[in-house]
Order: sequence, then C-alpha cells, then structure tokens
Amino acid sequence: MPSCVSDTPPSSLFDRPPDTLPVTAPAGLPDGPNLITIVTDDQGRWAMGAYGNREIRTPSMDRIAREGAIFTNAIVATPVCSPSRATWLTGRYPTELGITDWISPDESRSGLGLKGSTWPKVLQRRGYRTALVGKWHLGMQPQFHPTKLGFDWFYGFLGGGNRPMNPTLEVDGKQTKLKGPLPDLLTNAAITWLRQNKDKPFALSLHFRAPHLPYGPVPKTDSAPYAKLAPTVPKLSGLNQQQLKRRTRNYYASITSIDRNIGRLLDTLDELELSNDTIVLFTSDHGYNEGRHRINTKGNGQWMAGGVTGPKRPNMWETSITVPLAVRWPGIVKPSMKIVEQVSNIDLFRTVLGMLDVPTPKDCKARGVDFAPLLRGVPMPPRKTLFGQYDLHNYGLAYLRMARTRRYKLVQHFHARGMDELYDLIEDPSETRNLLRRAPKGFDRSIAVGLRQELRTWMESITDPLLTDPY
Amino acid sequence: MPSCVSDTPPSSLFDRPPDTLPVTAPAGLPDGPNLITIVTDDQGRWAMGAYGNREIRTPSMDRIAREGAIFTNAIVATPVCSPSRATWLTGRYPTELGITDWISPDESRSGLGLKGSTWPKVLQRRGYRTALVGKWHLGMQPQFHPTKLGFDWFYGFLGGGNRPMNPTLEVDGKQTKLKGPLPDLLTNAAITWLRQNKDKPFALSLHFRAPHLPYGPVPKTDSAPYAKLAPTVPKLSGLNQQQLKRRTRNYYASITSIDRNIGRLLDTLDELELSNDTIVLFTSDHGYNEGRHRINTKGNGQWMAGGVTGPKRPNMWETSITVPLAVRWPGIVKPSMKIVEQVSNIDLFRTVLGMLDVPTPKDCKARGVDFAPLLRGVPMPPRKTLFGQYDLHNYGLAYLRMARTRRYKLVQHFHARGMDELYDLIEDPSETRNLLRRAPKGFDRSIAVGLRQELRTWMESITDPLLTDPY
Repeated sequence: MPSCVSDTPPSSLFDRPPDTLPVTAPAGLPDGPNLITIVTDDQGRWAMGAYGNREIRTPSMDRIAREGAIFTNAIVATPVCSPSRATWLTGRYPTELGITDWISPDESRSGLGLKGSTWPKVLQRRGYRTALVGKWHLGMQPQFHPTKLGFDWFYGFLGGGNRPMNPTLEVDGKQTKLKGPLPDLLTNAAITWLRQNKDKPFALSLHFRAPHLPYGPVPKTDSAPYAKLAPTVPKLSGLNQQQLKRRTRNYYASITSIDRNIGRLLDTLDELELSNDTIVLFTSDHGYNEGRHRINTKGNGQWMAGGVTGPKRPNMWETSITVPLAVRWPGIVKPSMKIVEQVSNIDLFRTVLGMLDVPTPKDCKARGVDFAPLLRGVPMPPRKTLFGQYDLHNYGLAYLRMARTRRYKLVQHFHARGMDELYDLIEDPSETRNLLRRAPKGFDRSIAVGLRQELRTWMESITDPLLTDPY
Repeated sequence: MPSCVSDTPPSSLFDRPPDTLPVTAPAGLPDGPNLITIVTDDQGRWAMGAYGNREIRTPSMDRIAREGAIFTNAIVATPVCSPSRATWLTGRYPTELGITDWISPDESRSGLGLKGSTWPKVLQRRGYRTALVGKWHLGMQPQFHPTKLGFDWFYGFLGGGNRPMNPTLEVDGKQTKLKGPLPDLLTNAAITWLRQNKDKPFALSLHFRAPHLPYGPVPKTDSAPYAKLAPTVPKLSGLNQQQLKRRTRNYYASITSIDRNIGRLLDTLDELELSNDTIVLFTSDHGYNEGRHRINTKGNGQWMAGGVTGPKRPNMWETSITVPLAVRWPGIVKPSMKIVEQVSNIDLFRTVLGMLDVPTPKDCKARGVDFAPLLRGVPMPPRKTLFGQYDLHNYGLAYLRMARTRRYKLVQHFHARGMDELYDLIEDPSETRNLLRRAPKGFDRSIAVGLRQELRTWMESITDPLLTDPY
C-alpha cells in the first residue's frame, strides 16, 4: 500500500506499519460508536477553561475534557482556516491539496476547492449517516459541495464568512435568511438531525464560525458574565490595554456562546441516551492571538501595536498552531485523562477511522498516524518531529515551513532572507528569543542543522513545490 | 542602435530618438565642465530646507538649489540603497542587474555585485579623472571594486554600513581605522582629491552614508540647532510622539552634519575657482519615512506604531521614492529654476552624459532619457509614465511593480492577492486612500486598467522575470 505514506521521515518509530492496516470493508452496518466532531473557528488553546483559563466560561467544552481526554500538545499543520480544514478532513498537507491560504472569493470563483478523499466519505461508504452543519470554506462550486465530499446532509454556509446574528444559510439547498444567533441556529439544526438519525450509526460534524471576527453581537446571556471583567491581556509595549481588554471580553463572549450550545448538544445526547455510544471530539481549526506577539488573529496575524492594525506578521507561533483538543469516549477513554504526546490535525483522518475501527481504504493517501491507541491507554513510541506549513498569499506574502519537536521549533521563511526562526519551547514558551539570532552561550547549533535536514526530508516526501521554485 | 532601448512604452513622445545620439568619441581631452555628484543615503525629500522644511538646517544643499535648479518631481526607480545606486550608475532597472534588494553580507559573499556599464566608466574613457568617495554597497568581491567599474580612485567602504564616528575605511586599498565623524573624513578626502585634480576635467562622486541609521553620534555643532526643537512629526494613531520627535531631531542633526560638509566642499570650489566650471548635482538614493505612513526607513519600512518596530511594510510610498534633486550649473541653469516634470534616477546615466556632451557609447543599454534639455531651459514633451520596482527579500518578501503618472500611482504586489494600490497623488498626496478598495463615486476605473496595461508593457520591455515566474 505505498500510497499510504507517512508524514514523518522513515526513521520514525511512531508509524503504524502499513501492512497491519485492515483494508477490506466488512459486511453490514458498523457496530462501532457514533461520532460527533465539533470544530470552532479561531479559538486559541488559551481560551478554554480546561486549559487553565480561569476567566473564560466554557463549562461544556470543559465537560468533554473532564469526561474524556485532553491533549496538552495538539497542533495543526497550518494556522489558517481553509487549508487547516482541508487537512482535517483529508489527512493531507495544504500544498498537496493546492489550498495553502484561506480561499478568497475570487479564488473560489476560479475553481479552487477541496479535491481529496475525506474521512466522512470513508464513513459514509461504511454505512454511517453523515452530516455537516456550519462552515465549509472549501470551495463554492457545485463539485466541492459538502454533499459531494462525504456528507449526506449539509446545513450551513459554503464561504468563510457569515454574520454572528441573523445569518443567511443554505437550508435544504436554498439560501435562506434566518433570525437568531448563528451558533444557536446551527446547533438547532444539529440537534434536529441527531433526533432524526439517532438509531443509525452516525457521524455529525458541527463547524461553528465563532469566535471568528466579528466577535459579536452575541446574546446577552453569553456576554453578561464578562460585563465587569478586566481580562488578563498581554502587556507588551505598544499594545493598547483598554482596547485589548474590550476585544478580549467580546472574544470570550463569542466562545461562551458556542459553549452554551455545546451544552445543549451534550444534553440532547444524554436525553437520547446516546452519550455512551458516541465519541465527542472537540477542537478548533487553529489557534489565535489577541495581542499575543503584538498581533491579532492567526498565521496571517495583523500587527496591532499602537491600537491600530498594520501589515501581516506571517507566523507559526505556538499561539497560532496549538489547538484545544478533547475527546470524550465513554468506556474507553479514562475520564480526565491527560495526553501529553504531540499530535497534529494531519493525524485526525487516520485517528477518526482508528477510533471507529473502520479500515483505511486501499488507495488512501492520508498522512499522519492513528493516535487512537493513546486514547485507549495503549502507549505509543513518541513521535519526534511534527511538520507544518503556511503559504500566505492574501494581503501579504510568505512561504513558511515548520519542524517542531517537543522542545524546539524551526520555522523557515522561504525566498526571504534573515527571517528564519528557532525557539526553545521549554525554556522560552512565549517564543521571545529567536535562537538563530540570539543564542545563549554554549547553545548547540547542530539542533538547527538537524531540524533543517528533517524539514527538507519531509518537504521531499510531500513533493513540496518550494523545492523546485526558481525564486 | 537597438540596444539603447527606452524605459517607456513606444507611444511616449519624450524619448530622444536614438539616431540623434552622437556615437563617436572625439579626440583629445573634453572641454566640458567638471562634475561633482553628491548622494546622501536615506534622505527624504521632506528633509531639506529648499523643499519647504523650515525646521531643518540645510543651507548648503539649499545653496545648490538656489544657485541652480531644483526638481520638484524626481523619483527613484526603486526605494532601497543597493538597487537604487546600481540604477543611478548604470541607467538600468534592478531586475536587469540582478540587484533587487540591499545586498546582504551573505549575498555579497556568494558573489553578488554590480555588473554593468557605468557612466563613470564612460567618462573615464572620455578622459575624465574619476573618484568615488564614500559608500559603495555594490559588491565586496575584487571584480566589483569601484576601481573596476569606472572610478580611478576610491576612498570609503564597500559594504552598506559604517559607524558615524571613528569608522574603518579603505584608504589606498587598506582597511584603516580613522578618528572623527564619517562625513568629515569623506569630505576631507574629497577636498584633497579635488585639489590634486583641479586642473583636469574630473568627475567626483561623494556618497555619504548619513543620514542612514544609526543617526548619531554627530558633532555637537550639528546637533546643537535641534537641542530645543519640537519637530513637526506625523500625528497618526499609535505613533509615540515623544520617541518620534527625539528620532527626528537626531535625523535632522545627521543631515546637518552632511550639509556642513557640503558647505566645505562648495567653499573649496570657490577657493579653487572651479565653481563656474563644475556642475554640482545633489540627490539621495531614495526617500525616507520617520513615522510617515506609520513606518520607519524606506521601501522595506518597519512598522513603528506603538513605539516598537514590527514587520516590514513593503512600499513604494511617495515618501520612499521621491528624492531631493538639485543641479547647479553656472552659466547654463538659471538660478532658482524649478523643474516640475517628473524625472527618475533611471534617467541619470543619460542625463549625466547629456550634460557633459559626452556621447553615449554604441553598446549602451542604459534606459531612461536625457533630461539635460530641461536644465538648459529647452522644453521637452512631458513623459507620461514612470516605472519602478522593488523585490523585498531580506527580512520580508514582496514583489512590487509601479507605474506613476503625475496624477496616479499604481503599485502591483505580485504573488500576493488583495494588496495592489492606486493613489491619486494630486487629490491625496499622503496616499491615504487606496482607490482600488475605496474609490469615490464616479471614479473612472479604466485608469487602473490603463496603468496595469502600461506596467505590463514595461515589464515585457525589461524581460521582467515576474512575468514567467510560476508562483
């Protein structure tokens, strides 16, 4: 099965040998658990109670973590929406899919969209009922419609943006103007679908647009807890503290508006007595910065010193690539389990199938590894290095490639001299000291050399176009 | 003479028809005037008294303008040192010379430098004594030494940087540590050379490093006039006014330290009775921003809102591309003459030769036009469009191309979506309103279409690699 290549260099001990993967589909309906995947949009890992934030109210997200496992070292392969969602659904890197930045409206018109085998498609073929409720942002043309890419049912919006209140959504194939908060409308639809499909094995994907900008308006019930809060914000020179606190309150409120809806969904599972038979996976498409590193948003973060927004700071900061990841899997995952191994959303294609014991198809090109054993409490040899990328080409220009171990992160800026970055994530978790420019005395310079070599090997393994680009 | 192509599309009326250029060298020594070209480094046009700045003290620069002509619409083809200097000396665009950003030390080590025919070389062959005193920054390897590229004599430094005080300079081919302010040391050398060469036709190039960062230290006599000044600085949100005022004082002082030395040079010309036989051309290698547009420095400007420096804002702002340009030419140029036609440093190769009545060599590849007729008071048909470029690849990434008429400026950001800029330079001289994003009602959109077309024709004429780049 040579097409099922791994994303790690051959030396890695972590990959499950391809020949142990089951490749034939069993007869009849699967008897594995159901699956609900909840993905928020632009939620930094720091913006969730279970990760130690005592200001934000996320009782339902925290409940998933408390009743299941929480990953303390989960990253995404790329720090912007469209490519990250593409990776999440296919287990392939953005360059392999031709989606390397958020899909702009004119790119969408020119025919850009997701071409690739998705795990919902695999589940669908296996007999699962599948649905996507919420944001797509992986192509607007008919051939890229979610119902062509593995989802029986779609309720939501195909582009990247929408209004937090009174949005227009695709309902039964028609653009429909609706009343109410977007997260509530989406959750209503998800719950309705759940009630209709509760007897079959199902896989429901609920993709919120929140807490993406604009953060509001949200219902008063979600913003009220923060009305008098003076949230903790980065104290870096040039940041307007008052503006930042106001923004952070609104950001928190947006997340709480999702959380309240996740609560409704979990309650529905309880009510339908589905909780024990349903894996609930919660994550975000990438991280976020609200003033962190003096930027706002994510991999294409806008410089925000001085209370104004400046040009992009293309980045793969930890705050942009780390995500919340929690999996509740009653009977299998030990409650309040903490998983410290580093995992990536490149792994989720294989892991979803692994959790459900669904065989990987023969022609599968998904990279990454199935880390479901970790959830089952089965130790796996730790994976040494994870890889990432980001090609900024909307409102800025950058070609980033990243190699990240538990301790070090190398970011290479291709075509641009003098911008490469190396951080010690243990000694300097805020990534304030670029070791390629200011290394402490005695720092072992072979670390950068080794990571560059690993990065190159990985780039070769995905036939990265940057390797042959004349610039 | 097909290699002497023009930089303007064929439709332009401005170009002197190639067949009118004299191509044979006369016998004997030239009897034309001598030439002194003075180039400052990073001097915005706004930082000179003759351009209306009442805070800065530049009596000697102003004297050149008062006794000669001042150009109110002079730009450079590119807004960063090395490529601009390369264009200045060769009349060719940066992409044609392979020098598109400042030459970094490792690029220099890898063999980057100026390959091209320079006007000092043409003058040298014509019998002029030539000298470069000051900054080179066009290659450090032996084959790129100024003495290989048209200068009989070199006193200065080959790289881009140096200390404003007690620098190390190349003196008679040897690295020599000296004592004193850099502008004074350079001017001393220029004056000594002048005294030695006063009897021959000569062309002296004096290339200051000031007012490049670091602005100081400068002698107290140069900083004293600003000790109590609260200079006018941009009042834009996020800018630290106090910091900006302090920086501007130091910037002014650095310029005054040059001006004082230009005064010494002009006095020497008077003393040697050379003033009437010597053209003095004063300019800078590009413009500058000290808080303008919320950035510091030039085409690779650093975002400075909030009193901290952020990522690059690659730009071709007017403040970055317009330069002071004044020419004193006794007997020919009418004192206090104002020349409003737009001219570019791409024209200077042909214009220098044109002023000196030196024929352009047969194999000349210099672009641009000879605008010496303007100085002689001979009207020329106005040139409609000027072109520019900048490929940022040090500490940032951008591929900019510019088409500029007297009224509009189009900047295309290649490979990057959504960043193109169009400004109305008459209605909006501060370039605050990008007409591609926010056009007033009734704005004629064909302006952008026309400029894009002109830009493309120009790019084709210089075989711009961006046209065939796969990205």
